[in-house]
Amino acid sequence: MGFFTQLDTAIKKNNSLLCIGLDPDPVLMPQGIDILTFNKAIIDATAEMVCAYKPNLAFYEAMGQQGWDVLKQTINYIPQNIPVIADAKRGDIGNTSKSYAKAIFEDLKAGAITVSPYLGFDSVEPFLNSYPGKSVFILCRTSNQGSSDFQSLSVKINGEEMPLYQAVAHKAAAWNTLNNIGLVVGATYPSEMRELRQMRPNMPFLVPGIGAQGGDIKLTIEAGLNASGEGVIINSSRQILYASHGLDFAQAAASAANSLRQEINLYRQVPQ
Amino acid sequence: MGFFTQLDTAIKKNNSLLCIGLDPDPVLMPQGIDILTFNKAIIDATAEMVCAYKPNLAFYEAMGQQGWDVLKQTINYIPQNIPVIADAKRGDIGNTSKSYAKAIFEDLKAGAITVSPYLGFDSVEPFLNSYPGKSVFILCRTSNQGSSDFQSLSVKINGEEMPLYQAVAHKAAAWNTLNNIGLVVGATYPSEMRELRQMRPNMPFLVPGIGAQGGDIKLTIEAGLNASGEGVIINSSRQILYASHGLDFAQAAASAANSLRQEINLYRQVPQ
Repeated sequence: MGFFTQLDTAIKKNNSLLCIGLDPDPVLMPQGIDILTFNKAIIDATAEMVCAYKPNLAFYEAMGQQGWDVLKQTINYIPQNIPVIADAKRGDIGNTSKSYAKAIFEDLKAGAITVSPYLGFDSVEPFLNSYPGKSVFILCRTSNQGSSDFQSLSVKINGEEMPLYQAVAHKAAAWNTLNNIGLVVGATYPSEMRELRQMRPNMPFLVPGIGAQGGDIKLTIEAGLNASGEGVIINSSRQILYASHGLDFAQAAASAANSLRQEINLYRQVPQ
Repeated sequence: MGFFTQLDTAIKKNNSLLCIGLDPDPVLMPQGIDILTFNKAIIDATAEMVCAYKPNLAFYEAMGQQGWDVLKQTINYIPQNIPVIADAKRGDIGNTSKSYAKAIFEDLKAGAITVSPYLGFDSVEPFLNSYPGKSVFILCRTSNQGSSDFQSLSVKINGEEMPLYQAVAHKAAAWNTLNNIGLVVGATYPSEMRELRQMRPNMPFLVPGIGAQGGDIKLTIEAGLNASGEGVIINSSRQILYASHGLDFAQAAASAANSLRQEINLYRQVPQ
């Protein structure tokens, strides 16, 4: 089953647009617990409340040589019916991107990856066409403050002026021959998200930036939903993983995840 | 000793602007040799001919869980007087980039990293200011064909029109308060490199794209050298690593590296 089909099934089964970012930070975790045990407890406590999990590779690489193994075991532990997005933000020349695709899709067995558009088509292509069923979320309008440095610059495409991030959305549509592309669109820029939704009515958006980064859930849902009341994957990491710093962290995470799922559903106007 | 000082010392000691890309590809390597042994043999054979080594992380991640360890041991094996650039092309929101910086600078102990500019200042900052002596090469004009998709788009900065990659060079200069920033400028676009050199007379350029990718050495040297006859780090990977697919690969690599060093020096007009 392809990533987007699996995602759609999980959204409906769990009645959820919530994705949990599995970004373990030893400074914020309860003392005396190893990262794999922590991740497994979070997954056990929340697997019925989410539509996806999204581990960010940075937090695993920071562990050194055990990191890849912990990440692989974490992904392997996630129930088959919940899709996994490897948040890697990779992007290199074609020959090199091929190696990243092998690492993420074949070794880690993630269902989707985030990639950077800066190097253009041949840097994204190895993730797109050689792995049927896998999906790619291209960084478009990211949630951080510095995203305006380049993403907001006005460019001209086919004689039309638009900010760079919209040019990325244009190219992404042109590259989307297998219908396996989504965009990363931060919750911190809801008006930009609204314009992107108008441009790309059916493209899935992976949405970081609520919680610690300040994105508003109501504005995000109003701006990002597609005509079917879906189309956005709302990621939350710190707000859920570290809802408690004590040994009740998994229960606290379940409670925080459920609240967030319900709040999202409230604005989606679907039954709780 | 800071990365750029170490680089300058190695350039002078080995009379070389050549950097070898340590990108092991099991398909192209001699049969029956493991990657760490291969890398060590390449390093032993070429350490007197280069100014830097540049392992690209993709080739190590493609190995799965042993990859990080092989990479770390490879970096550890490189003689102290030759600086190491981790070609990682990372870039994430600040909190996450911090974890990548920890992985690359503290765990792998590389002296420099390549980063993507797409997320803007706060994605680059964690690599810049918390690690005195480390350096950062920001992707500017990459060597691949797709680089024109976005990097060539015309943008306006301070009322002046320029291609996006020049806007990156502008911002890089503004961020360079500690003098630890370089740019990645592909050998496949020498006229763009010449303009960038005029804009940034003293900023080091890391130059991929000669050899397999088709960049011309003479044009690159003419376009990229700074006033001291340095300022470019010319990377070659496949042309050196796989000069022979047999068991004489290390000798063949040494010979290929030496030829390339001499050809570069010929156009630099320094003694062979």
